[in-house]
Amino acid sequence: MSDGKLPPVLARTVLQQCLHARLQVKPAEGESEAEWVEIQRGMVIYVCFFKGATEDIIPKMVNSLMQVKLCEADSGKHVSVLELPGNVLIVPQATLGGKAKGKSMQYHSNIGKEEGLQLYTSFVSQCEKELASSSKCSEVGVRVRHGTYGNRQVLELDTNGPYTHLIEF
Amino acid sequence: MSDGKLPPVLARTVLQQCLHARLQVKPAEGESEAEWVEIQRGMVIYVCFFKGATEDIIPKMVNSLMQVKLCEADSGKHVSVLELPGNVLIVPQATLGGKAKGKSMQYHSNIGKEEGLQLYTSFVSQCEKELASSSKCSEVGVRVRHGTYGNRQVLELDTNGPYTHLIEF
Repeated sequence: MSDGKLPPVLARTVLQQCLHARLQVKPAEGESEAEWVEIQRGMVIYVCFFKGATEDIIPKMVNSLMQVKLCEADSGKHVSVLELPGNVLIVPQATLGGKAKGKSMQYHSNIGKEEGLQLYTSFVSQCEKELASSSKCSEVGVRVRHGTYGNRQVLELDTNGPYTHLIEF
Repeated sequence: MSDGKLPPVLARTVLQQCLHARLQVKPAEGESEAEWVEIQRGMVIYVCFFKGATEDIIPKMVNSLMQVKLCEADSGKHVSVLELPGNVLIVPQATLGGKAKGKSMQYHSNIGKEEGLQLYTSFVSQCEKELASSSKCSEVGVRVRHGTYGNRQVLELDTNGPYTHLIEF
């Protein structure tokens, strides 16, 4: 397996387009039902941070992910999620940092949990700001929704083609 | 964005666990309805080949992907899709070869369509063989299903946690 790591990857994102997505943010417990968030048409961002990642990369990540033309407009043309305008569902996904070693996956390059939570929180809030500052987005009321860091990400995804991309930072 | 590419990546796979997944293999046309394939519990493999990939890598890919412990057994332990035993849904996903260049994605490293189809076909058939040769898999009747190369991959995915991994070859 290839291992090109120069310069080192600090964050890995996988992006999928959706028509509808639903994510559990709190599992059922005792008598209380599970809680979910959902989005209609837009983009699902799976995100993972590696050791060495700092706050510095967040603005660059958010800027790139919100601006890159990954969404299919009704015309068939590809536009950014801000231009669509589309909703955003952010899914913390530490498993993306895994590396196959024999038959097992190892996660030695993943950032520590506390730092990871901090970066994740910052990433979510900057995505929210970016969408909120777009008049096109606020007019139609598109939203950022996100999973609970550290939880199991129970996800349902409905697509018209996931159009899966990998973008690393 | 990072660009570690030494040695060059010949194939990229993204792996997700599912409880149920449904993929369109033929769009609706005139009076005929769209055709779908579906799997119950198992693994979704999104796959993309790069320039320079040849038949040589297929056995290694299939062996790794079928053997790596990415599936959660009822015990909570992670086992391979063969051990689970789980179903496999293969989704051709050329977009995985994309590289962000400014606000656009470029696909210059992707393999040509004809060669890509050949490798994809071979990948599917070797995955099928691998599952068929496992007595554990044939006893419970788990299956390989796959998308139509070159089509839009209209996908519905239901997970208990996608547990998304990236494995490159």
